[in-house]
Amino acid sequence: MGKLYVIGMGPGALEHMTLKATRAIEESEVIVGYHKYIEFIKPLIGGKKVVSTGMKAEEERCKEALRLSKDNIVSIVSTGDSGIYGMAGLILELRKNEEVEIIPGVTAASAAGSVLGAPLMHDNCNISLSDLMTPYELIKKRVDSAAAADFVISLYNPKSVGRPHYLRECIDIIKKYRNGNTPVGVVKNALRDGQEATLFTLDTFDDEFVDMFCIVIIGNSKSYIKEGKFITPRGYSLKEEL
Amino acid sequence: MGKLYVIGMGPGALEHMTLKATRAIEESEVIVGYHKYIEFIKPLIGGKKVVSTGMKAEEERCKEALRLSKDNIVSIVSTGDSGIYGMAGLILELRKNEEVEIIPGVTAASAAGSVLGAPLMHDNCNISLSDLMTPYELIKKRVDSAAAADFVISLYNPKSVGRPHYLRECIDIIKKYRNGNTPVGVVKNALRDGQEATLFTLDTFDDEFVDMFCIVIIGNSKSYIKEGKFITPRGYSLKEEL
Repeated sequence: MGKLYVIGMGPGALEHMTLKATRAIEESEVIVGYHKYIEFIKPLIGGKKVVSTGMKAEEERCKEALRLSKDNIVSIVSTGDSGIYGMAGLILELRKNEEVEIIPGVTAASAAGSVLGAPLMHDNCNISLSDLMTPYELIKKRVDSAAAADFVISLYNPKSVGRPHYLRECIDIIKKYRNGNTPVGVVKNALRDGQEATLFTLDTFDDEFVDMFCIVIIGNSKSYIKEGKFITPRGYSLKEEL
Repeated sequence: MGKLYVIGMGPGALEHMTLKATRAIEESEVIVGYHKYIEFIKPLIGGKKVVSTGMKAEEERCKEALRLSKDNIVSIVSTGDSGIYGMAGLILELRKNEEVEIIPGVTAASAAGSVLGAPLMHDNCNISLSDLMTPYELIKKRVDSAAAADFVISLYNPKSVGRPHYLRECIDIIKKYRNGNTPVGVVKNALRDGQEATLFTLDTFDDEFVDMFCIVIIGNSKSYIKEGKFITPRGYSLKEEL
């Protein structure tokens, strides 16, 4: 009897993976994943069988993982949390009677937030700007609603070659509702090799630096920058002047 | 020279903590936190000095952690992600020149989501129903906007003795925009001792089971339940009938 672990490995560095995820990978006979992400966990893989595929092959990857899990202990891995834009949904949609366990991880917004300071301390939302499976009109509607209701907004998949203008357009939507001095943080490769972070405001924002390996976080109306850290106050009335 | 780690311990079970968080606690001379959460990490604490305080003493707790960190390695711990309704914001607001490192963890919505299935697979938001520091009118506005824009909604601090009707009222707001058969998942003590999970729909939802140790997740217009699992599809056009 086999089993399939659906693993969120967190941002990428092994130290930000949970012990449960680490143990499940060690226990597995087969590791399935996008080849770039498999690289991150190479030290844990040793001589295990690896089934790695390219991007946009998610359905095939999930079917293969489910097929292999009938007779093997298998881990299918993705970065961040397996349940937020990860593989958990597709696995459960395709599952027939295979045994599946979902193991959550640190999602990319949390990783990027920790690098920037504490931007996510109040009500917040995650929006993917990828229009591969979501109409751009719906994406823009969500950005507009989130800005109007003063959510902190984390943008996943903020920019790709095929849609270079979406991020700029979404920032313009947010500017309808927020001050120009609202902080905007960009983190590339948060908490893994190649990490870079830049702080802007809505007025100074420049999307040149942004690519698919970035998370972009836009503050709410109370967010501010203090000594290089992006802070959204939880709302405590502090007992002395800061 | 001391240092302050601001640690998100994840849902509570040690196996869902990251290696980085575990090592930081082990390295620390002093552990600061709400006494109930200190219990979760007891096996890691050994003979270390512990400064534990009750609820609603967040400011004092943070100031004490910062003060101690001038001469000691200190960890201030909270459940979930330290950056989402955790201690990271208050620490950075109060910080003068102390050395601070934020260590993210698995947030409660990710933990609860993994127990229920894959509810957070599309654009999603976190809203706290606690009105201690946020006007209830703003909370309701955010629930309304999130429902109108078809976000998956995770409710933190969904119910307490002092505000028994908020959850019911927020569910009623969401019902203006969603079908009655939209899944609603409730997880109490997700991924720690005492875990219990219940699946409802908007029509069958009963808040009796809900308390402060729960997360409530409401699906978007595409969410459904399959063999006891709450799934929000990412949007793949699958190549065979399921």
